[in-house]
Amino acid sequence: MSVPPHRLASRLTVSSVEITPVALKDPPLLNASGCHEPFQLRSIIRVRTTDGIVGVSEAYGDDGTLGLLNRVAAVLPGLDVFDLNGLTHRVVDTLGAQSVAMFTELLGPASPDKTAAVAVGAFEVAFLDAQGKAVGRPVADLLGGAVREHVDFGGYLFYKHAEHPDGTAPFEPDAWGAALDPDAIVEQARTMVDRYGFGSLKLKGGVFAPREEIEAVKALRRAFPDHPVRLDPNANWSVEVALRAAAELEGELEYLEDPTPGIQGMAQVAARTSMPLATNMCVVCFADLPEAIGADAVQVVLSDHHFWGGLRACQRLAGICETFGLGLSMHSNSHLGISLAAMVHVAAATPNLSYALDTHWPWKTEDVIRPGVLEFRDGAISVPTAPGLGVEIDEDALAELHEQYVRCGVRRRDDATHMRRFDPSFTGARPRFS
Amino acid sequence: MSVPPHRLASRLTVSSVEITPVALKDPPLLNASGCHEPFQLRSIIRVRTTDGIVGVSEAYGDDGTLGLLNRVAAVLPGLDVFDLNGLTHRVVDTLGAQSVAMFTELLGPASPDKTAAVAVGAFEVAFLDAQGKAVGRPVADLLGGAVREHVDFGGYLFYKHAEHPDGTAPFEPDAWGAALDPDAIVEQARTMVDRYGFGSLKLKGGVFAPREEIEAVKALRRAFPDHPVRLDPNANWSVEVALRAAAELEGELEYLEDPTPGIQGMAQVAARTSMPLATNMCVVCFADLPEAIGADAVQVVLSDHHFWGGLRACQRLAGICETFGLGLSMHSNSHLGISLAAMVHVAAATPNLSYALDTHWPWKTEDVIRPGVLEFRDGAISVPTAPGLGVEIDEDALAELHEQYVRCGVRRRDDATHMRRFDPSFTGARPRFS
Repeated sequence: MSVPPHRLASRLTVSSVEITPVALKDPPLLNASGCHEPFQLRSIIRVRTTDGIVGVSEAYGDDGTLGLLNRVAAVLPGLDVFDLNGLTHRVVDTLGAQSVAMFTELLGPASPDKTAAVAVGAFEVAFLDAQGKAVGRPVADLLGGAVREHVDFGGYLFYKHAEHPDGTAPFEPDAWGAALDPDAIVEQARTMVDRYGFGSLKLKGGVFAPREEIEAVKALRRAFPDHPVRLDPNANWSVEVALRAAAELEGELEYLEDPTPGIQGMAQVAARTSMPLATNMCVVCFADLPEAIGADAVQVVLSDHHFWGGLRACQRLAGICETFGLGLSMHSNSHLGISLAAMVHVAAATPNLSYALDTHWPWKTEDVIRPGVLEFRDGAISVPTAPGLGVEIDEDALAELHEQYVRCGVRRRDDATHMRRFDPSFTGARPRFS
Repeated sequence: MSVPPHRLASRLTVSSVEITPVALKDPPLLNASGCHEPFQLRSIIRVRTTDGIVGVSEAYGDDGTLGLLNRVAAVLPGLDVFDLNGLTHRVVDTLGAQSVAMFTELLGPASPDKTAAVAVGAFEVAFLDAQGKAVGRPVADLLGGAVREHVDFGGYLFYKHAEHPDGTAPFEPDAWGAALDPDAIVEQARTMVDRYGFGSLKLKGGVFAPREEIEAVKALRRAFPDHPVRLDPNANWSVEVALRAAAELEGELEYLEDPTPGIQGMAQVAARTSMPLATNMCVVCFADLPEAIGADAVQVVLSDHHFWGGLRACQRLAGICETFGLGLSMHSNSHLGISLAAMVHVAAATPNLSYALDTHWPWKTEDVIRPGVLEFRDGAISVPTAPGLGVEIDEDALAELHEQYVRCGVRRRDDATHMRRFDPSFTGARPRFS
């Protein structure tokens, strides 16, 4: 045997946990909630074990999540990084019936289950990274083995302003320019496809009147006839509006994502369109699944280890999707390389996670990891083969982004307030289009 | 880091696979299919890796299963033992649309999915054992970590004859004697509880008229008022008979297992009793779940890594049961210590696998593993803490039981033919009681 029995068994216990909030420059991307602020927040988690192995992870960086993560971090020392069930147990014990508001209201109301899932997901990735480093295996191997060498992502298109309102962003405007009509969206798509090789496209909708977004989809289809296209109005349409839009888009979309709020609303739309409906809004935790499946409300679930409870929870969800004939893709919030690596590992090890995944990656100009591992080629990322997640923290970059966090003063996501700087009449009430 | 990166990564590939059929002496236990023959068959699987680690597993030993396992074994060399998805892929590639009759007809008709699941389950356990040995961790740690130190089992009571018919068993009768009425069942239960400390009891029914089995349950309840009792008629009752029996047993049983055949039949019974219905007959693969859940046909699923597709598949099933509010227990066929260890590891690492598990263990007098690891105390087995499954093969015992296999001539399970040696009128048609 290459490793003596018990050599590792007693040694992989957590000795300390470090959580470092960071802020990233963000372009003024538009969505149903409003507009991305100049800075978006993440937290970088480092779990150190008694023998010096460090597992890394990445989570939301708003104050609510940070408070949650710090409370849990305090009870992790002594826990074995292989004991993922023990992690869940400590999280639930520590948080009890506490509910922390979700990072974005698009994930629905807070609940104790969702709160626990966010905390478990954050640390589970670090535990798996540590496990992989300890045994010399990539995380995908710990999840059943990679079924694909490359994981496909889609080009994520956003309506956007050219720059943040005067005085709100202490940095130069991004190079993308404004995208406020179909032509500009097509141009944005062209740049994305040229630069990253994406083989499918997704438009973040729910921003302009459905008519305009339908025209944008049609323009994309004409410009990229071989690219599957998705549209995500983020539940900003009433059932009636969604039904009219679905009729007009029939056959044009790979799937229509969250056209309208709620499982029952989605079910009403699903019953009258042949296009698959996808969601990361009305099915965001295991408790949502029975009703959604019973109502045949959605045909594709967009998984996300940050709020489903980690990579193994995503695989549990994958098993449910496979069993009940649901498609499975993966949702993105703005994220850094640690989370991108985590997404790649779990997608690689999940046979039925076969749709291209979402990522905000092209909108990001900074990172905490050393470059070189995660490069897009033909719209895909190669599964890292080094132990653990296969990414390494760049200490200087991390320190700089933490300084940026300290300086920027943003402590929770608030797209609506920023939107009102462009459009004082914006209320954020949804569905806006009815 | 205690293990250099990549040290293990390139080394844990399968170099050879050895499959050894064994035969075990079996008492004349009665069930819906007939009577256990004097010998029952298992196969012992050894997966050797290029660096000398050997993972062990145990599967059915009938000719159909052996043929299946040998076909798959031929394509495993070169596969990484961490690549469990690759194992599934090679199995499916090798077997294609082939269906091999299930080890027992109680699991329903053969299908390509079930056939693949049997093969995957057989080798996955050996792969996990090898993984655990390689990294110095018990299998429970590879499945998320043990949530309990001991796994509870129930005392599995059988109607039985005192001995096999003259000339059919080349060994002395067992020490249990006949059990053909309620008093004898209570006596059998007393011995089991005294000897193993079981805290719950299960009667294998579907053998005698429902009236007699109901009386046996009531006798058990009187004799063991603190022991939850289960009854398993193995779908040998019509819906009408099941409904009458359920009404009479209302409140007496922890659950009623497979009273009647089929999901729709079970649903008719479930709708009219408050007792949970359990199954390992109408829900035996993932494809069965949607209909069963939709019809609210069962409240407890009895998992079994041998036919669900391995330990990780059992955890996938556990996730579905948790999500849909189903209970989860574990089914037993006659098995040896390797499979008992596998059951203990997966049960330990599955929080909602909280019912006492089934085991035929007390009916077995031989084994292929070295004694000492798996000992019942208070009806429970302690989770082995050594790397892998934590059990070791006793080469002499294995050789002896293989010799017994060669000599005995039994090559497939046939309880009905043996039953006719006691009762020439036995047809095996089910449901027998209608």
